[in-house]
Amino acid sequence: MAMMDSSSSSLLYPPPPVSMNLHIENRQKLINRFRENLISSSRDLHGFILLQGGEEQTRYCTDHEDLFRQESYFAYLFGVREPGFYGAIDINTGKSILFAPRLPAEYAVWMGEIKSLSHFKETYMVDMAYYTDEITEVLNNQYKGSGKPMLFLLHGLNTDSKNYSKPAEFEGIEKFETDLKTLHPILTECRVVKSKLELAVIQYANDISSEAHIEVMRKTKPEMQEYQLESIFLHHTYFYGSCRHCSYTCICATGDNSSVLHYGHAAAPNDRTLRDGDMALLDMGAEFHFYASDITCSFPVNGKFTSNQRLIYNAVLDAHDAVISSMRPGVNWVDMHKLAEKVILQALKKGSLLVGDVDEMMVERLGSAFMPHGLGHLMGLDTHDPGGYLQGFERPKEAGLRSLRTSRDLIDGMVITVEPGCYFIDALLVPAMESPKTSKFFNHEEITKFRGFGGVRIESDLYVTSDGCVNMTKVPRKIEDVEAVMGGASWPIKKSKRMKLDE
Amino acid sequence: MAMMDSSSSSLLYPPPPVSMNLHIENRQKLINRFRENLISSSRDLHGFILLQGGEEQTRYCTDHEDLFRQESYFAYLFGVREPGFYGAIDINTGKSILFAPRLPAEYAVWMGEIKSLSHFKETYMVDMAYYTDEITEVLNNQYKGSGKPMLFLLHGLNTDSKNYSKPAEFEGIEKFETDLKTLHPILTECRVVKSKLELAVIQYANDISSEAHIEVMRKTKPEMQEYQLESIFLHHTYFYGSCRHCSYTCICATGDNSSVLHYGHAAAPNDRTLRDGDMALLDMGAEFHFYASDITCSFPVNGKFTSNQRLIYNAVLDAHDAVISSMRPGVNWVDMHKLAEKVILQALKKGSLLVGDVDEMMVERLGSAFMPHGLGHLMGLDTHDPGGYLQGFERPKEAGLRSLRTSRDLIDGMVITVEPGCYFIDALLVPAMESPKTSKFFNHEEITKFRGFGGVRIESDLYVTSDGCVNMTKVPRKIEDVEAVMGGASWPIKKSKRMKLDE
Repeated sequence: MAMMDSSSSSLLYPPPPVSMNLHIENRQKLINRFRENLISSSRDLHGFILLQGGEEQTRYCTDHEDLFRQESYFAYLFGVREPGFYGAIDINTGKSILFAPRLPAEYAVWMGEIKSLSHFKETYMVDMAYYTDEITEVLNNQYKGSGKPMLFLLHGLNTDSKNYSKPAEFEGIEKFETDLKTLHPILTECRVVKSKLELAVIQYANDISSEAHIEVMRKTKPEMQEYQLESIFLHHTYFYGSCRHCSYTCICATGDNSSVLHYGHAAAPNDRTLRDGDMALLDMGAEFHFYASDITCSFPVNGKFTSNQRLIYNAVLDAHDAVISSMRPGVNWVDMHKLAEKVILQALKKGSLLVGDVDEMMVERLGSAFMPHGLGHLMGLDTHDPGGYLQGFERPKEAGLRSLRTSRDLIDGMVITVEPGCYFIDALLVPAMESPKTSKFFNHEEITKFRGFGGVRIESDLYVTSDGCVNMTKVPRKIEDVEAVMGGASWPIKKSKRMKLDE
Repeated sequence: MAMMDSSSSSLLYPPPPVSMNLHIENRQKLINRFRENLISSSRDLHGFILLQGGEEQTRYCTDHEDLFRQESYFAYLFGVREPGFYGAIDINTGKSILFAPRLPAEYAVWMGEIKSLSHFKETYMVDMAYYTDEITEVLNNQYKGSGKPMLFLLHGLNTDSKNYSKPAEFEGIEKFETDLKTLHPILTECRVVKSKLELAVIQYANDISSEAHIEVMRKTKPEMQEYQLESIFLHHTYFYGSCRHCSYTCICATGDNSSVLHYGHAAAPNDRTLRDGDMALLDMGAEFHFYASDITCSFPVNGKFTSNQRLIYNAVLDAHDAVISSMRPGVNWVDMHKLAEKVILQALKKGSLLVGDVDEMMVERLGSAFMPHGLGHLMGLDTHDPGGYLQGFERPKEAGLRSLRTSRDLIDGMVITVEPGCYFIDALLVPAMESPKTSKFFNHEEITKFRGFGGVRIESDLYVTSDGCVNMTKVPRKIEDVEAVMGGASWPIKKSKRMKLDE
């Protein structure tokens, strides 16, 4: 048993080993669907799926090497942690081939042992391993079809970034036919529905991140700096969970900053001093074996909710719980977003911030003045996992809804965040309070009291089952639980049952 | 007073505010030298120095934003933490101009307050601030010379990475004359000699990193994981020092890994379990306000040196101390490297690992079989700060010496690392033990006992004064001190006298 950091402890240490069977299953799923697709379009079952893994990057013109993180499509299929690889799957045989970079002898002195091809073959459980300078030769030798071998390369739109994935490039590619259209939608759709082994990894990322959030809650006090909360989180997930990467830059927003949806980046770097009476909104998630978690907790930094904080917090919690109660396969995500909006508007009306008919407010899209972001997004190897919009589907145009990263119906096995929020953002509220269409809904006197409040977001990671959904996030949510845990009470964090990852 | 993490404490909290006078001085130094250069080559004192700051990067095709870190030349002159800026200095007037990106209204909702131009002007203490889409207009209006205004852009070789810095690009650049040759060598040479304000920042980075190294030493125990030591370091420097960036990826090497010079990257990711009897070699440094620290401590993970560990550790420590005792302006760095080699070889001979004449060993470059890397490198905004080789100077060709990142004579105000090491690397020792030229120097029986030992490196950051040098790194180095601190003894870490950064 390893020594623990004396300030805290963890029920989740040591982290579980992860079997490469996860990636074997991912490849098998892809090849099955890929063959179905080729058959349905009467194409040959020959050629190769070929992906290029990520390369190490240096900072500007210097030799400062950024910590490498594998490209997610490549990680999905091969689980390779090292830079400079290529990976192929033979459509005909289903066999997998890794191509490793051929390293110079001095690598052994500076960077570490030069691992053999058989090491990579065994570690990553692929059928064959060669060097990257052998791609052309190996694929030609393996090819049993006629004419030039076909390479199916990854090229397609990421609907969140609007960027395109980069198809593999290598010397000799002109000796192949290439197809840039077929692979991306099929592979993306494979990623949308998670396997049991993927769920187990995401569950561990959630477990260790949940535990770290609780650690942060317990240590948060007025007069601390926002970045100190980030530091506690990072330390807990790395020290106990081996999570070297976060899923995204930590958002540690307190006071009015909590109304800045993506606070925490270099231009707004978690550098405010916490004040007694502030709300904190902490959106932080560790990455475990490439897979994300994405969790937001909101709480008063002094450990006790005021009545105004209760009002807003419970409005958001009710929305969070209402959505989770309604989620099941076939339910449409835009409807879930509207459900969350409606619950929040009802609570704000009950709390006398709003007046009038909630259905009318919905028609006027008033919810988007309080929750400008989407209710949640697919999550997996990327925090914003791809596949939110099927090819040909268009984003909704209405305020709020156009921020949704998916408009799809839920499917058994999807992992999706549920993250309703309620914020007091002058840039949105002032126009809404002045607009002839929505001004009448506001109790102007009451709402003025909430300017500078910031916001509340409550975010959990859910996976959809055949008849509902399971919340993978295990943090205190009810006000009495949050206050108790901040006061030092224990909280039941246990290893999840799905934790046998090396089966 | 802020709450401290209960497991530890810090004498260095809160971190000092840093005055932008540092960057005003940097700009003034550049403009003075630049004008001298133009005058000496009979050129007009007109035109502008123009640099483009760094841009935010996303991960592959996704919308995952990497945490932005400013480009170092730009940071040197302007100290700007946000992405997307340009900065200019008017050669004629010496006035500084920042160009900020014009942000869309929705930035306020997602990313934070849209700051005014006057905010940037005041924060960064520049003479003027405009938007980046105004560069062409502003520079033309400011220009008092004749013909097209001349822009001096940054373009030159980084002698560590072999990459070239990227000259500024913007719409309308064709309306200017451009000069790619003059700026880089002058600006690089400005960075080589540090001002008092720069030294104070580097000193704080050293102070907080030294304290964090001691924290790690105290908590290190057999059966921990290497990455847990990294996590303790990162937490201490961020929680107490506000250091969000490290100067480089932490090297937490134990056992045989300590002979891998750049261990710790994604393909060798600090994931070994510490064993009783191991040496640890921890090379970790925090970055504070863009400036680096770079510190290596080596110690036995169980807190008690064996006699073999003492032998190698003291060989390296003697080299470290001998170099520091000899450093002063005018001393050549290649000579310092050789001095370190010689001290190590003498100690290995005294310890019966080597036999024969040490001067002969030096002629055969035997030292490089034990210390393949250079003795140290310039350090500042980059861990491997530029300017190590003046234009036209060539790298030494001999084994070991060719790894040196500088061959220069020391100058008052240089900051340079002193990091001798002694490693047992089969890939180097086996050939040396078999070579007819060097085989005779080895006590083959004795040296075999050290295979698997790994290595020892001791690294401090020094600044050169008018008559010697000052060690900015404040960690226990003598064996009795290391053992005492690991056993729980206090160690005098105090705020450095130079800490008034906001004067």
